[in-house]
Amino acid sequence: MRLSKFYLPTLKETPAEAEVVSHKLLLRAGMIRKLTAGIYSYLPAGLRTLNKISQIVREEMDNAGALEILMPTVQPADLWKETGRWDFYGKELLRMKDRHDRDYCLGPTHEEVVTDLLRREVRSYKQMPLNVYQIQTKFRDEIRPRFGLMRGREFLMKDAYSFDINEEGADKSYKAMYDAYMAIFTRLGLDFRPVEADSGSIGGSFSHEFMIIADTGEDTIAICENCTYAANLEKAEVVYAKKECVKKEVTQTEEVLTPDTHTIAELCTFLECAPEKTIKTLLFNVDGEAVAALIRGDRELNEIKLKNFLNATELEFANKAEVETWTNAPTGFAGPKNLSVSKIIADNELLLDTDYITGANKKDTHLLHIDLERDCTITAYTDLRVITEDDSCPRCGGAISLKKGIEAGHVFKLGTKYSKCMNAAYLDENGKEQTIIMGCYGIGISRLIAASIEQNHDEHGIIFPPQIAPFEIALLNLTPKDEKTSEKAEEIYTLLQGLGIEVLYDDTTERAGVKFNNADLLGLPMQILVGAKSLDNGIIEVKNRKTGEKNELKIDNLRENILNWRDTVILSWKKS
Amino acid sequence: MRLSKFYLPTLKETPAEAEVVSHKLLLRAGMIRKLTAGIYSYLPAGLRTLNKISQIVREEMDNAGALEILMPTVQPADLWKETGRWDFYGKELLRMKDRHDRDYCLGPTHEEVVTDLLRREVRSYKQMPLNVYQIQTKFRDEIRPRFGLMRGREFLMKDAYSFDINEEGADKSYKAMYDAYMAIFTRLGLDFRPVEADSGSIGGSFSHEFMIIADTGEDTIAICENCTYAANLEKAEVVYAKKECVKKEVTQTEEVLTPDTHTIAELCTFLECAPEKTIKTLLFNVDGEAVAALIRGDRELNEIKLKNFLNATELEFANKAEVETWTNAPTGFAGPKNLSVSKIIADNELLLDTDYITGANKKDTHLLHIDLERDCTITAYTDLRVITEDDSCPRCGGAISLKKGIEAGHVFKLGTKYSKCMNAAYLDENGKEQTIIMGCYGIGISRLIAASIEQNHDEHGIIFPPQIAPFEIALLNLTPKDEKTSEKAEEIYTLLQGLGIEVLYDDTTERAGVKFNNADLLGLPMQILVGAKSLDNGIIEVKNRKTGEKNELKIDNLRENILNWRDTVILSWKKS
Repeated sequence: MRLSKFYLPTLKETPAEAEVVSHKLLLRAGMIRKLTAGIYSYLPAGLRTLNKISQIVREEMDNAGALEILMPTVQPADLWKETGRWDFYGKELLRMKDRHDRDYCLGPTHEEVVTDLLRREVRSYKQMPLNVYQIQTKFRDEIRPRFGLMRGREFLMKDAYSFDINEEGADKSYKAMYDAYMAIFTRLGLDFRPVEADSGSIGGSFSHEFMIIADTGEDTIAICENCTYAANLEKAEVVYAKKECVKKEVTQTEEVLTPDTHTIAELCTFLECAPEKTIKTLLFNVDGEAVAALIRGDRELNEIKLKNFLNATELEFANKAEVETWTNAPTGFAGPKNLSVSKIIADNELLLDTDYITGANKKDTHLLHIDLERDCTITAYTDLRVITEDDSCPRCGGAISLKKGIEAGHVFKLGTKYSKCMNAAYLDENGKEQTIIMGCYGIGISRLIAASIEQNHDEHGIIFPPQIAPFEIALLNLTPKDEKTSEKAEEIYTLLQGLGIEVLYDDTTERAGVKFNNADLLGLPMQILVGAKSLDNGIIEVKNRKTGEKNELKIDNLRENILNWRDTVILSWKKS
Repeated sequence: MRLSKFYLPTLKETPAEAEVVSHKLLLRAGMIRKLTAGIYSYLPAGLRTLNKISQIVREEMDNAGALEILMPTVQPADLWKETGRWDFYGKELLRMKDRHDRDYCLGPTHEEVVTDLLRREVRSYKQMPLNVYQIQTKFRDEIRPRFGLMRGREFLMKDAYSFDINEEGADKSYKAMYDAYMAIFTRLGLDFRPVEADSGSIGGSFSHEFMIIADTGEDTIAICENCTYAANLEKAEVVYAKKECVKKEVTQTEEVLTPDTHTIAELCTFLECAPEKTIKTLLFNVDGEAVAALIRGDRELNEIKLKNFLNATELEFANKAEVETWTNAPTGFAGPKNLSVSKIIADNELLLDTDYITGANKKDTHLLHIDLERDCTITAYTDLRVITEDDSCPRCGGAISLKKGIEAGHVFKLGTKYSKCMNAAYLDENGKEQTIIMGCYGIGISRLIAASIEQNHDEHGIIFPPQIAPFEIALLNLTPKDEKTSEKAEEIYTLLQGLGIEVLYDDTTERAGVKFNNADLLGLPMQILVGAKSLDNGIIEVKNRKTGEKNELKIDNLRENILNWRDTVILSWKKS
């Protein structure tokens, strides 16, 4: 492609709207443009990369035996009412009415549609296993779309759905998708980790997220430095070497006045104690029931763990009136002793010690020498807190480190969550009706462009891996007014095209400096620089955008020299 | 692809919803399924054909120098308000509000979005010509979606938009797209005609429709049997060999009582006259003005011609009260003499004769011996009627035939219709601001699947041209229980895959009859039939689905025999 015939509107300045580096560079390199909040157009270069990522995903899905289909964007409300998600999904579901006043939504995901599609056709156990996927535009009306392609409202997604006759088959389908995702993210050249994840509102029995490691990620993941364990923060289990409480004698509980201590830090300073000796009492309204959660003063509660433990639908912090009723005191002094709640759930860690300091359910007052067993009625101990880098791996005991990640893929074992309420059934070998076991598997195709750039860039621009770059090679004519240079550049352009190598040929009359900058900004992995001066010396210069390494190729036997150099650039990506 | 691993739910019975043959066959062959009115899912075989058509369109658009982009489905109302189409477009535009109560629509077309995209970037004449296209899902809330993929609500479209600095450039861009469309429809193997078309509500200065000839088409087109002239019915000009009125003396106008004559036929029977001697007077409210249109009693008025001639926005039949006021009589007796209207527009044909019969603007009464020149005030004569097979070609005078067609493509020269109101301007060579000249060019990709099937089918099923068939070859193992047959079938499957030929291998345990029927139904162009009996004779049977021709290929040198036969099948498509 000749740049003079291409549309690549690069920008010198970063538009004010962009916060993260991928968003800035996608705009500056002329790959995308914003239409409105969270909704983008792909310009020619951006679409080329989007299509390349789609193609890699498609090939690996096909390899895994999944069949590509295409389902509609506009979905009738009736199906969403069958699963209850019409009410449950909330405002992210964009709803509308057609000319006949019938309710529809724009598909944020396709469990309902695909289950409806196959329940009408699949009758027999012989028709499964079946795995269908699509690469299709989704819409989620995010409350705060941001970071460009990272969290858009309209985005491109690959979603797959598996249908199996039993748990064993479903696990096999899940494993096949897990393996396909490993292959996809590896081929995309990304630094990623599959992590154990919470199933969230989509439901189902277990799931993994595929996280692209990047400082700008919106998720935090816990990774073992020793084994392959990785989990997102909501899911990461906290375990302890010694699980039993060290029983020791505790003196009688004692009230102490603690005026003006509003935080754990202030309390500890006032009482001259370590935060590890204090307990936070957090009060929640859980599906209408009063629940207290206890964790050590220096720890952070993981609400998802609490919600999952209670098998709750809604979990909300207690309001002022509820706190005052349950504690019989103003807010800020809750403690587990003499608390009027239905359940008190304590974090496992509190079993490891005793003689704690807690709120006294009395204004400006705390209690010293609390022995939870002796003084309080604890409903249950469980893992309630957020993991930290001080904790150890729940699998191998190794060191845990916390990293930021971008969720780019998600595999779910759904079980019968959708098939049951939508009555997707089949006849087994004995002619008995059984419910289909499903799985669902998503990849955020458009988000992957952003994720790749977050991992691969420098101060000059994007650094694209060869397999997803809009073009492989940037061919720069540095002295277009010089006839000999233009001839040679044209010759190389024709040569590369003949070899089937995708090349963006800067044949414009811009200054060499502008050409260098644009080439670095768009970040094609290979640059071939044709200039009068080096041609006089019988050479052309080439540059590996990733390593910055420059080489001189002799123009004798140029075809072979270019191909050899191209191999070294591709190799430099495989090594890392 | 092995059929046992594929998802191809063929149906023996035709679902009641299907009216036209393409719809029936698409459902029966397991290519699509209906989600809800006018909204379909593509199953694996259907998507393969959809993608092949897309790819042919893409290649020819790229060849023509157009650049592929991808714009969003969801569009903000603001842009549509700029062009006035938010109010003007009507109920086909599906509108909705997001969580912040902002107005959006689902894009039925992208003139607003693309003009907005480029007006922000294009500043200089040097940046044009520019032609961008996308292959993208559209939504039009049709009042009566029908015929499956022929007139859906959600459908796949290729839409391109050209941007030029002057009329000459715009005409060149238009011509390039016209030529690309010729190439596309030819490559798709369709019997088609480009026809002159009315620009309709999308506006603009001139346009061509690309019509696929098919009895089930919703449009009628007039085609010259002699030259290349073709136009759709709204646009087709009517011309006459002798253009002048034959002046002859007409006796005085005479009233005649015509009770109970409600139609031209009844009137002619009653008066014993030929319908060619009568004039129909049709009354309209045109943008608030009273207008009468006169045509011969046996002719059909072309309202579009009237509307265009008057340069009108809205044209409605006069209501009862208006008719009574304008004619001073009950409805049914309107005539051009003493009619209280602003304008009387008469069809050119009325100039060819005189001594007509018209209504008398009086109950149960007509007038004989009307001389339009003498008795009436005619505002203008123009071409007002629908062309018939009795007319001759406006270009060469050849015979006209009327055919049904499916509109599958449309090229428009838009001029400045959108660029003006959206202020899409550039600086010319002299630094002066000028308005960009635009064109737009659409192809209904999903509709083309239906159109191709309307042209290519028989009582057994679809007959796909090789270039858009889901697979090229159906390989049928007719005696799967026979080890030797299965071995040979597997060998051929491996051979074809190795050659990069797309093959659907029926490796199931179904009866041969079922396999034959399914293969004919899906209509892959080539069938290879492997059975025990013919293998014993050292041959395999092959069948050209289009011609029905069967051949026997020797299993010695099978690779070459298959390739040679494949060439003949491809040739049989090129010859037709």
